[in-house]
Amino acid sequence: MAVVVQNIDRADRDVIAKLGMAGVATVHEAQGRTGLMSARMRPIQQDKAIAGSAVTISAPPGDNWMLHVAIEQLREGDILVLAPTAPCDMGYFGDLLATSAMARGCRALVIDAGIRDTRDLRAMGFLAWSTAVSAQGTVKETLGSVNVPVVCAGASVAPGDVIVADDDGVCVVKREEAGTVLAAAEKRLAAEEAKRERLAAGELGLDIYDMRGRLAEKGLKYV
Amino acid sequence: MAVVVQNIDRADRDVIAKLGMAGVATVHEAQGRTGLMSARMRPIQQDKAIAGSAVTISAPPGDNWMLHVAIEQLREGDILVLAPTAPCDMGYFGDLLATSAMARGCRALVIDAGIRDTRDLRAMGFLAWSTAVSAQGTVKETLGSVNVPVVCAGASVAPGDVIVADDDGVCVVKREEAGTVLAAAEKRLAAEEAKRERLAAGELGLDIYDMRGRLAEKGLKYV
Amino acid sequence: MAVVVQNIDRADRDVIAKLGMAGVATVHEAQGRTGLMSARMRPIQQDKAIAGSAVTISAPPGDNWMLHVAIEQLREGDILVLAPTAPCDMGYFGDLLATSAMARGCRALVIDAGIRDTRDLRAMGFLAWSTAVSAQGTVKETLGSVNVPVVCAGASVAPGDVIVADDDGVCVVKREEAGTVLAAAEKRLAAEEAKRERLAAGELGLDIYDMRGRLAEKGLKYV
Amino acid sequence: MAVVVQNIDRADRDVIAKLGMAGVATVHEAQGRTGLMSARMRPIQQDKAIAGSAVTISAPPGDNWMLHVAIEQLREGDILVLAPTAPCDMGYFGDLLATSAMARGCRALVIDAGIRDTRDLRAMGFLAWSTAVSAQGTVKETLGSVNVPVVCAGASVAPGDVIVADDDGVCVVKREEAGTVLAAAEKRLAAEEAKRERLAAGELGLDIYDMRGRLAEKGLKYV
Amino acid sequence: MAVVVQNIDRADRDVIAKLGMAGVATVHEAQGRTGLMSARMRPIQQDKAIAGSAVTISAPPGDNWMLHVAIEQLREGDILVLAPTAPCDMGYFGDLLATSAMARGCRALVIDAGIRDTRDLRAMGFLAWSTAVSAQGTVKETLGSVNVPVVCAGASVAPGDVIVADDDGVCVVKREEAGTVLAAAEKRLAAEEAKRERLAAGELGLDIYDMRGRLAEKGLKYV
Amino acid sequence: MAVVVQNIDRADRDVIAKLGMAGVATVHEAQGRTGLMSARMRPIQQDKAIAGSAVTISAPPGDNWMLHVAIEQLREGDILVLAPTAPCDMGYFGDLLATSAMARGCRALVIDAGIRDTRDLRAMGFLAWSTAVSAQGTVKETLGSVNVPVVCAGASVAPGDVIVADDDGVCVVKREEAGTVLAAAEKRLAAEEAKRERLAAGELGLDIYDMRGRLAEKGLKYV
Repeated sequence: MAVVVQNIDRADRDVIAKLGMAGVATVHEAQGRTGLMSARMRPIQQDKAIAGSAVTISAPPGDNWMLHVAIEQLREGDILVLAPTAPCDMGYFGDLLATSAMARGCRALVIDAGIRDTRDLRAMGFLAWSTAVSAQGTVKETLGSVNVPVVCAGASVAPGDVIVADDDGVCVVKREEAGTVLAAAEKRLAAEEAKRERLAAGELGLDIYDMRGRLAEKGLKYV
Repeated sequence: MAVVVQNIDRADRDVIAKLGMAGVATVHEAQGRTGLMSARMRPIQQDKAIAGSAVTISAPPGDNWMLHVAIEQLREGDILVLAPTAPCDMGYFGDLLATSAMARGCRALVIDAGIRDTRDLRAMGFLAWSTAVSAQGTVKETLGSVNVPVVCAGASVAPGDVIVADDDGVCVVKREEAGTVLAAAEKRLAAEEAKRERLAAGELGLDIYDMRGRLAEKGLKYV
Repeated sequence: MAVVVQNIDRADRDVIAKLGMAGVATVHEAQGRTGLMSARMRPIQQDKAIAGSAVTISAPPGDNWMLHVAIEQLREGDILVLAPTAPCDMGYFGDLLATSAMARGCRALVIDAGIRDTRDLRAMGFLAWSTAVSAQGTVKETLGSVNVPVVCAGASVAPGDVIVADDDGVCVVKREEAGTVLAAAEKRLAAEEAKRERLAAGELGLDIYDMRGRLAEKGLKYV
Repeated sequence: MAVVVQNIDRADRDVIAKLGMAGVATVHEAQGRTGLMSARMRPIQQDKAIAGSAVTISAPPGDNWMLHVAIEQLREGDILVLAPTAPCDMGYFGDLLATSAMARGCRALVIDAGIRDTRDLRAMGFLAWSTAVSAQGTVKETLGSVNVPVVCAGASVAPGDVIVADDDGVCVVKREEAGTVLAAAEKRLAAEEAKRERLAAGELGLDIYDMRGRLAEKGLKYV
Repeated sequence: MAVVVQNIDRADRDVIAKLGMAGVATVHEAQGRTGLMSARMRPIQQDKAIAGSAVTISAPPGDNWMLHVAIEQLREGDILVLAPTAPCDMGYFGDLLATSAMARGCRALVIDAGIRDTRDLRAMGFLAWSTAVSAQGTVKETLGSVNVPVVCAGASVAPGDVIVADDDGVCVVKREEAGTVLAAAEKRLAAEEAKRERLAAGELGLDIYDMRGRLAEKGLKYV
Repeated sequence: MAVVVQNIDRADRDVIAKLGMAGVATVHEAQGRTGLMSARMRPIQQDKAIAGSAVTISAPPGDNWMLHVAIEQLREGDILVLAPTAPCDMGYFGDLLATSAMARGCRALVIDAGIRDTRDLRAMGFLAWSTAVSAQGTVKETLGSVNVPVVCAGASVAPGDVIVADDDGVCVVKREEAGTVLAAAEKRLAAEEAKRERLAAGELGLDIYDMRGRLAEKGLKYV
């Protein structure tokens, strides 16, 4: 039941970096409005964005033992993703674990639970998205698993999937679809750029997207 | 059922600006402790305050079509106020709609739902108060209404009402009462100024407000 | 029932200051993972830490009268701790009360309810941890008590207990145990420092804490 | 600010009774999917339905004084509707107030707050919908108003509006529209009856509502 | 840190039984509106009431080991009271533990966490109040304590305190005050009986409690 | 993107029926404490249990069109499982859809959203587990998918998986593992029966499970 999968596939580094630049909202739209974690998942810092490969952790509530196990599996550019097996707001992760994770090339954590030492994490430049901030200490008594599929904050995450995170939240891109999603995201960004200019010049979405006919047909009345 | 009211009355610009300077807490008190939206309504930026005339939107959950319709109705200084017809945390509004709204003179949004591209909105100086941050995309399929009375985050808002918003939340002032409320707010601010000085000098509220007798009468015991 | 206890014991000033420097997570661990308030208790400012002696307030929901009474009991370095007798998110405390409290030597408030004028409080350097931000005004009609034991955000607080607060939340240290807890906290900090260096150098917690044997014994499988 | 409106208009008794028989879901649909209170509003009994004219109460949090005032305004068949001015889960109403209200012809309460003595209320046949059950006692110190417009659990209620309540929640019908809404509801019920028979016989909604073409057009693929 | 206190004092059996008959709302009022647990604490059965002596448990989240330890400490008429050291909705308790507890004379559980096998518990006549229902299994790895003071659902509970529970929730009476509180509760019940008759006969609370003068004085206007 | 998978595999009928009799708590334990939906998922009826094969639905918030599509895919003994693509408490399902589903052999619905006509559903014997009860009407405008993998209330569900539901909540058993899980569940039930008798006779879990030594070793003190 309790396993550590040691060798996982990851998406292309360049693709990952570009997904991070596209941002959560664009990537989420580009893959058909899927993969988004719950709005309960919030950053502890402002105006930061990142993307990386998921090293997943399934851990019991209030037990952070598997984080130590997972850190050994990290490679440069990975993001730790922890899903507890039951709702829990305790502080699984703080500055010591962040120091260790950074030493192994990890720069971010996504956790459907609590974290602590948030001031230190911000000072260190370690990025974190969590569903709680809490100093409540955890134990190291019960096994979990590393690099197995998890459901984190309502989204399915497989090990090696691309995690995109910014101020809007966290989105998961399946590893095998990373290239396709990036292409769609870049197309979308280009299209948005053209629209942004027209909108900034005062043109209306009603006209740019040609909505007036359909609105009338549905029965919208102007009074 | 689905209507757009095109010409709405607005309060006096100068009155609106001064209500914004008085701030949410003072205005709320000045109008008899009414008009406040729920504490779930939070700003995405810090240390910013604004006031403007409400252009209201009643929209179905997960459908942002009416935002495009509403933007056409905006005038300089207006604030968009969106109330979904059922609870919804999806991201109705992002940087493209903000670009369009700003081009029409609008500088703020108040929404009992989610918004996205929050980093961009802060960078653009577009102010927003919402009950969620979420990248979750919406559709454009079902009509709603613009400039009809709505209940937004527990507060009744009529089109043209004055919206006052700052770090403490959002307060609604009925359009017809804006002048009266401003007068009461300014009176309150003046009175507070005098009290602030006495309190800063170390005088106690117990003495300034003459509370000791009434406390004793109610039975408060010092031990 | 409604009493004001006027003379309370406080912990040693130097001990209090050092507990504040140790921080919430360390102090909470040092006293056996007890004393932490709920994760709902959040700061209105970022990257600030403090410790002080609790002046406690038990107040009815929506009634801030006892805050005026409590302010008279403050001494330099105290922290106001307010627990309503039923859940309430109204704004009990704003800039006038903060002005008064600061004039009496108080620099922070911990409240299981709402506060307002948060921008002013930040500008004044008055620190606050609350479970809500709300401009909703309160009344002054019903008595409560000052300096009696309360349960605030799930934690028991006796008057004179040491309150430690930072970005991670709020922790309560029993007054009589302050010295012992500080000693344990400082020991812990020293031990952490050594570990931090080894972790930063890339050593794994698995090895530093000698976990591999126990993990294998519990049945963890590497695949 | 604190007023009691003594003579309010009510809808026709027969119309009210028939709206009650139509039930919340049907009435809500019949009036264009409006008027529904939040899903937080739950009955304390099962399998009971009622309709009546709203006698509204705006009351401070934790203060049930206005309930005594409102009871004097009740007429046979009325329903008490209480909206606190801030979120509150305290127990405003119990068996004594229910005894008094029943003696004045009232058989139900709708309250965006707590109630107590729920076992007694069920035994008495007094129906209640609330957002909490709590024994927490309230005070009688601060005025509110009776028979003014309120926002209760997200829905606007004017005095004299028709309240329809059953296991699905609570819906508000504007007094002036009661007859029209009833007509629409009865039409809807008749149409549903015919559909129910066809569905019970195994016909599919896909065919009865002729959905297959539109689904295909939107792009639904069967694999 | 982890202790089991084996011999605790309990209140008089007859007093406990009578407090149970008085019920939660009356007892809570009789002791000055204190001791009530949060409204999140709900019964899994309807129309049942009980009182008993608290055998308290402080347990880690997701770990029910201490329940086994606590059961050995039970005496006829006791009520198990479990407070987790961090919020947790897992299912600590089911039919096997209930069988064991009943065999030791215990007939109820109060838990600020989840329970399971609720259908069986109802069938067995074992009463339970909890903040969640969940089948989620717990572990037996980390110690807690039995018969130490705890904060359960916002209320302080010492071992041996009297727990009163019914459909309205759960109230704690300090062991040493049980007799005094009972006297106050019985006085209150007698007074209520007289009022109930007058109210049932149609007299108004406004008159029985002589409220009209004070309402007018505060400024209530009838229009 | 929007697909209907028409032919799905199902587990053996007899195995499904026996899993239903084993119940949620036992099945959840038997498969290593996995597969449980969130405790927010609650039944609308009491003391009923069921198991069946999942026909899954991924639907937009506030849009129940896909339910009509899914009903055509039902076979005798199936359970509808609906996961909205964003949190939503609207009433997707009522008595007409239940009539239609029952005519196709379906006797239960599991939905991470709202349902309505709950009194009718109970009267019809149609079982439902939901995260809300709400009369709020939905539209039929946007496609979703039927019989694709979904995350429902925090649990992954593939089409054809076995859904076990009772008063404790809902648990998902992977189709391919149904037989193995049943064997483990039955073994567990047999073992529990023996323990239940010993516990009922007054033996302690401390002794039956031989816990005393390990408790002492961990440091538990009896005082």
